[in-house]
Amino acid sequence: MELRIHKGTLEEAVSETASVLGKKSLLPVLNGIKMEVRERELVLEGCDGEIMIKKVIPVHKGGFESVETGACVLSADFFQDLVKKMPGPVHMKKVNGRMIMESGEVKTSLSALSTEEYLHIPDVEWDGSISMDSMDLVELVRQTLFAAAKEGSRPVLTGIHLEFSENQVQAMATDSYRLAFVKKTLNSGKDYSCTVPMKTLRELVKLFKNTKECLKIHITDQLFKIEASEVTLISKLLDGAFPDMEALLSKSSKAELVLDKNRMMYSVDRAGLFAKDSGNHQIKLRLTKQKTLNISSFSPQVGMIEENIPLIKASGEGTMDVYIDSVFLLEALRATKGEDIQLFYNGTMSPLILRSRGDDEQVHVISPVRA
Amino acid sequence: MELRIHKGTLEEAVSETASVLGKKSLLPVLNGIKMEVRERELVLEGCDGEIMIKKVIPVHKGGFESVETGACVLSADFFQDLVKKMPGPVHMKKVNGRMIMESGEVKTSLSALSTEEYLHIPDVEWDGSISMDSMDLVELVRQTLFAAAKEGSRPVLTGIHLEFSENQVQAMATDSYRLAFVKKTLNSGKDYSCTVPMKTLRELVKLFKNTKECLKIHITDQLFKIEASEVTLISKLLDGAFPDMEALLSKSSKAELVLDKNRMMYSVDRAGLFAKDSGNHQIKLRLTKQKTLNISSFSPQVGMIEENIPLIKASGEGTMDVYIDSVFLLEALRATKGEDIQLFYNGTMSPLILRSRGDDEQVHVISPVRA
Repeated sequence: MELRIHKGTLEEAVSETASVLGKKSLLPVLNGIKMEVRERELVLEGCDGEIMIKKVIPVHKGGFESVETGACVLSADFFQDLVKKMPGPVHMKKVNGRMIMESGEVKTSLSALSTEEYLHIPDVEWDGSISMDSMDLVELVRQTLFAAAKEGSRPVLTGIHLEFSENQVQAMATDSYRLAFVKKTLNSGKDYSCTVPMKTLRELVKLFKNTKECLKIHITDQLFKIEASEVTLISKLLDGAFPDMEALLSKSSKAELVLDKNRMMYSVDRAGLFAKDSGNHQIKLRLTKQKTLNISSFSPQVGMIEENIPLIKASGEGTMDVYIDSVFLLEALRATKGEDIQLFYNGTMSPLILRSRGDDEQVHVISPVRA
Repeated sequence: MELRIHKGTLEEAVSETASVLGKKSLLPVLNGIKMEVRERELVLEGCDGEIMIKKVIPVHKGGFESVETGACVLSADFFQDLVKKMPGPVHMKKVNGRMIMESGEVKTSLSALSTEEYLHIPDVEWDGSISMDSMDLVELVRQTLFAAAKEGSRPVLTGIHLEFSENQVQAMATDSYRLAFVKKTLNSGKDYSCTVPMKTLRELVKLFKNTKECLKIHITDQLFKIEASEVTLISKLLDGAFPDMEALLSKSSKAELVLDKNRMMYSVDRAGLFAKDSGNHQIKLRLTKQKTLNISSFSPQVGMIEENIPLIKASGEGTMDVYIDSVFLLEALRATKGEDIQLFYNGTMSPLILRSRGDDEQVHVISPVRA
């Protein structure tokens, strides 16, 4: 096993594949990156048993030269730090079970483990694939993931539920106090549904947030796979039936307000300061007689805040008076596209519905809190 | 008590004075910022019992208008967060023991405490003052503070020892394994010496790192005071005699090497990676027959690294072979000015001395570690 490669190329590939690996495990091979030199490509793999990321670098790209084929496993953390500090192009050669790594004047010799014990995702038959633009997928995750449950008795809620059909994809996340729903048009889709774990989605955002490319998505009963030009991500899916929340997304309501989104975000952020002490971050939204939205909050320790936000439009039955979690509301506002938002109100004990004005691709539902 | 002020001016002043305050104390008044409106100025004060920072804003500066004089104490954390989120100029008025604070559409009412219980540094007679440029003082702290003891049985080592004389100031810090020494020319100095605590020096760097102004320094037996145009910092001093380390700074040595500083920094950083596992971060420096400096390190877990650094100059008796703490060496190199450094070597068990070439204002001394 022997190769030459530019430092930058190796550094990026190691960092991408190492990012799924967690804290130190007792078995060194579980903290490792698998590195395989083939005749026409270099393949790096990181796997924590739940997620696997594979990076392929073709010969001649980024200075990669395949001198002799072979494979080994190197300690991920250490390898990553070392490559970062190398002065220039790197020459690696496996000799007697050790990896000799040289760069300029620097000579190092690292323990290299055999690939025999390395984790791998079992081979499966991948059915037909779905094509999706990476930017669309990253946006869809960012617009919903915050609403997923961080932990809890229902593991299926700690992910995003995806439903693909012929010409669209729907994403839904809920921690059962609030719900984020987004849909996007797809050019070539298939009928599939699955629930993808939070950790996988965070890796996905890291991998693709700065790229624009066409991804191929494959789904089986248990696995989710994304293939990009040089990177493949494979993850287990979450078990269990995702609850049916469609009924919450209905549009009928007693009252409807239209507001400037940024103006409301700043107000909710300020009111949230005073609501921090209360366990549910409770702030109050009230429609005034002067047709403004009054946002207020009170903390016995610190004091109170209130302000009136002008409405762009108000329709339906007049009164609105609801206590809501300021963190949930702020996260939903931040995830919503567009300049103006619509608020739909159905009574003190009914969920508040939030949409981007003139856009039915995104809906947020937030349960009120008891005052 | 009533005032008007620009949001930015208030935000900066609150952030500067709040920065000395620690974690939440049981007594609310100890987490507070004292705010005093006088006819011609606004005075903010933060004090944790060891350090006090006072900020003075004269009328008309930064939109400050003094409407009615008075004083109160506001919760530091909360006040700081709130001012940051205000939309524009702030109007504050104390009514019935509460501070009414308005900005644009936003109305808040905060608990205001009386200033009676507020901490204050006792009045003392300040002797004549020393003048020093803020950039010089910040540089002097940055070049020595890293070598001070983080904790330990000798509290006096957790600060920097300063010695002022007619035309210069000397600063020294040591954790008894290494020593950093810097001196600077002063235009008008007086004979004083004192040991300033680490926390005070960190605040000092925060306050003055981006300014260039002439500071007035006052020292008494127990207190250290810095006055700038708008900010005053007063701190307790550390008790006890600072050890006399002058003997360590002698220049005579068996061997002297001159090297490129950056080249050596990168090498020590890389070798340090392999030395992390050893408790003393041990790396080896060795003068080769080819007159290069060989830097190497070995970890039984991971492997080894070595490289040769070309010398700009080598003189004295040939052999050099010393084990040293890579973190100490790296910190000393980073703090050293200039492109080339001199290394003075006196034997395997003698301290290594590091200077900037052609500059006797800065010396670092590092004890070797036992291999």
